Amino acid sequence: MNNNFSQHSETALDRLVKRLARLPGLGSRSAKRIALHMLLNRKDVMEPLAEALQETARDMKTCHHCFSIDTSDPCRICTDTSRSENTICVVASVADLWALERTRSFRGQYHVLGGLLSAIDGMGPRELNIDALLGRIQGEKVEEIILALSATVQGQSTAHYIADACNGLPVTVTRLAQGMPFGGELDYLDDGTITTALNARKAV
Amino acid sequence: MNNNFSQHSETALDRLVKRLARLPGLGSRSAKRIALHMLLNRKDVMEPLAEALQETARDMKTCHHCFSIDTSDPCRICTDTSRSENTICVVASVADLWALERTRSFRGQYHVLGGLLSAIDGMGPRELNIDALLGRIQGEKVEEIILALSATVQGQSTAHYIADACNGLPVTVTRLAQGMPFGGELDYLDDGTITTALNARKAV
Repeated sequence: MNNNFSQHSETALDRLVKRLARLPGLGSRSAKRIALHMLLNRKDVMEPLAEALQETARDMKTCHHCFSIDTSDPCRICTDTSRSENTICVVASVADLWALERTRSFRGQYHVLGGLLSAIDGMGPRELNIDALLGRIQGEKVEEIILALSATVQGQSTAHYIADACNGLPVTVTRLAQGMPFGGELDYLDDGTITTALNARKAV
Repeated sequence: MNNNFSQHSETALDRLVKRLARLPGLGSRSAKRIALHMLLNRKDVMEPLAEALQETARDMKTCHHCFSIDTSDPCRICTDTSRSENTICVVASVADLWALERTRSFRGQYHVLGGLLSAIDGMGPRELNIDALLGRIQGEKVEEIILALSATVQGQSTAHYIADACNGLPVTVTRLAQGMPFGGELDYLDDGTITTALNARKAV
């Protein structure tokens, strides 16, 4: 299928649609729909979005301490004195950090690994920010490491690797509880979740 | 729910996500996923996209003749001497024009109405480029008008309105064949269906 809008040379619009179509969750058709919507709303949508992209690319920095992304380095979570210094929540990605912050139920520090261990994807311990985490445990007043990693094979093998690496260090290593999701209906849950929830049952 | 990434002041990233979330087909979560993907690929994804947006906003023009969007005014379809001047294909939007061009089965001219008649949306004949179409029929060597409008109530009432307005003018008015599925919208149809409907068009 010809993706250009005409049979002539590639236009600025063709290039824009190609770039949009490569973004996660978008394809050729949704990219065209978005591009047309923007073209019909240049002043209100297209130009402000271009400015927001450039502003973000310029202003957002990676925190050298926790590897999150923020307008400042160190980030506002690392420098927030109202947050506990004793607990570090270890997450795979900045998206996971945002998901946890959205709940407003954690008031400690974070450490972003930048991925999970995966032989297939060539992600070994050197590719993740694990050494920096161990350095923080030894150099700071850390009492607890919460491994907030996905309940997948890669998430759990990364958790095991970090727990092993923390062996002998003066720190408690915990992980997020596994069980039924909030609002989960037993009939619709997978067998693994039910088994885990059953084995981890608590006294009422 | 707090949509900011922290409980502090709004950052460039917050503004970017808000702008992305307003694009058609995107929501808050997909906007965050896209923003994070771009932040992790600033040089390869984010900055080129910002440039593509600005380039497109600057370079793309509305053709004063057929009301399509292209890098030049008049557009490359209107100035292409290899295309027939005797047939004008009337479409609701530039997206529909693109859908037809994708099939490579039409080699005439286009006329973009800029919408469909709709009492609910306040779209009357004055809001559409219908007078310009009638002017083209009277001033140019047009022999046939193909009404390539969606098989919806609005599409068909717009087709009837234009067919009535062409009554008495020296032009044949045709519409796409009833090969389109009931309620189908042109932009979402597969190429084969569009081609079949175009080739089997009937006189109104």
